[in-house]
Amino acid sequence: MRPYVIINAAMSADGKISTKEHRQTKISGEQDFARVDRLRADCDAVMVGIGTILADDSSLRLKNPDLIAERAAAGKEEQPMRIVIDSQARMPPDGDMFRKGTGRRVIFVAETAPQDRVAALAEKATVIPAGTTRVDLNLVLDKLGEMGVGKLMVEGGATLLWSFTSQKLFDEIRIYVGALIIGGADAPTFVDGSGFTRAEGFPRLTLKNVEKIDDGLLITWLKKDE
Amino acid sequence: MRPYVIINAAMSADGKISTKEHRQTKISGEQDFARVDRLRADCDAVMVGIGTILADDSSLRLKNPDLIAERAAAGKEEQPMRIVIDSQARMPPDGDMFRKGTGRRVIFVAETAPQDRVAALAEKATVIPAGTTRVDLNLVLDKLGEMGVGKLMVEGGATLLWSFTSQKLFDEIRIYVGALIIGGADAPTFVDGSGFTRAEGFPRLTLKNVEKIDDGLLITWLKKDE
Ligand SMILES: NC(=O)c1ccc[n+]([C@@H]2O[C@H](COP(=O)([O-])OP(=O)(O)OC[C@H]3O[C@@H](n4cnc5c(N)ncnc54)[C@H](OP(=O)(O)O)[C@@H]3O)[C@@H](O)[C@H]2O)c1
Ligand SMILES: NC(=O)c1ccc[n+]([C@@H]2O[C@H](COP(=O)([O-])OP(=O)(O)OC[C@H]3O[C@@H](n4cnc5c(N)ncnc54)[C@H](OP(=O)(O)O)[C@@H]3O)[C@@H](O)[C@H]2O)c1
Repeated sequence: MRPYVIINAAMSADGKISTKEHRQTKISGEQDFARVDRLRADCDAVMVGIGTILADDSSLRLKNPDLIAERAAAGKEEQPMRIVIDSQARMPPDGDMFRKGTGRRVIFVAETAPQDRVAALAEKATVIPAGTTRVDLNLVLDKLGEMGVGKLMVEGGATLLWSFTSQKLFDEIRIYVGALIIGGADAPTFVDGSGFTRAEGFPRLTLKNVEKIDDGLLITWLKKDE
Repeated sequence: MRPYVIINAAMSADGKISTKEHRQTKISGEQDFARVDRLRADCDAVMVGIGTILADDSSLRLKNPDLIAERAAAGKEEQPMRIVIDSQARMPPDGDMFRKGTGRRVIFVAETAPQDRVAALAEKATVIPAGTTRVDLNLVLDKLGEMGVGKLMVEGGATLLWSFTSQKLFDEIRIYVGALIIGGADAPTFVDGSGFTRAEGFPRLTLKNVEKIDDGLLITWLKKDE
């Protein structure tokens, strides 16, 4: 069975997830960081696209020691599985994701990924081919299901979220809306990619919840049944 | 005294205000249309950038006959003043804004606007030069204050809102967040323009209110005092 997919991200009041230079930006605050850590701890796996790793060198790890201990006490790995979607195996073998925290790392690549880079990554991670020239998210979700991942958190970025949302491969969206304007026609937004041109294509949502966190809002949407 | 400036717009859950082809898109519903009409009725003037007129041929008029009657009963013009920010006087003289509804239309142009187009527009509207090569919003707000506009509603689009927000020329933002994803790196977002690159530049907001309307949310932000 495929995992339950929760998309989680933070955007400015005008829908940007970083500056136009792809510089990581503080959009939320302490209370929201704690919420994100809690959500990571509750998931079997967390995922980003290679663009996010190259921009931010994200470690994707759970940071709160209490949550790590809680997972261990429940007989789980300290860290949820950390996954990167990376067709051409561009993931740097010395990235923070390998250097920080324990547990399993998984890199999904395309069959056309250069074999030398795949070999280098295979020393640090489980490298799984899924798709011919680009990673195919349908295959990814099937494989994660087979690997026992029940709950998957997808943290971005803008391009990967376009694939997840346009293919309707998600169950829930948790989007933090921060109390600031970033602006910029070229800044990454919550969902980029090619975009829909006709209303029939738009993925529709159902509002599940809204709550105040730090200076902004956390909005929870569910994918609308059609 | 300068008017109190309320920015009002509707965006998808991922921050887009139209498709990448600048095609106008239904983001909210009946309840929100009524809210926007009510807000127009309560303002002395409503404003858009020329990009919005060229994309949508917006009439900007108040539609609800009850609200029109209410304004008339209060001794006001039926329609609030309708304003376009249009440096080069590109406003089409046969646009819906001239053809529909009564009341005063004002076009702010730059001093370099072609004189023949200014003359053609002057038959239908009050044309006011404000700025040398591009309309200067500081001058616009000063002039509107002198003209007795106490409350101004700015309806978009993305480029005009960048100028208003980056220059901090607003008091309040009312942004409707619709239950859909539009996506697209090239789709107009709530605030486009050049965008900020450093956190020190970001206009900061204070959350005033959030309420459920139709299938989505209306978020009201105030400009944060600094
Ligand atoms: N505020 C937040 O919550 C948040 C969270 C995460 C990221 N971010 C920001 O997002 C930005 C990065 O976003 P991004 O759009 O550049 O990168 P991204 O979405 O993280 O990664 C996109 C890359 O993934 C690879 N990919 C492989 N298969 C794919 C598929 N089926 N669909 C989509 N992508 C696939 C593609 O590269 P290949 O073809 O080479 O594989 C693609 O270029 C950064 O600025 C980061 O700071 C913000
Ligand atoms: N969902 C919503 O609530 C909503 C509301 C409104 C619009 N929209 C959408 O927004 C899109 C249009 O946005 P847009 O960005 O193309 O156009 P826009 O913001 O409506 O107009 C921008 C134009 O205004 C002129 N301008 C003059 N002085 C300016 C100044 N100081 N600052 C900024 N602009 C100035 C510029 O042209 P010149 O230099 O030629 O004067 C500029 O290109 C359309 O797709 C429309 O559907 C959506």
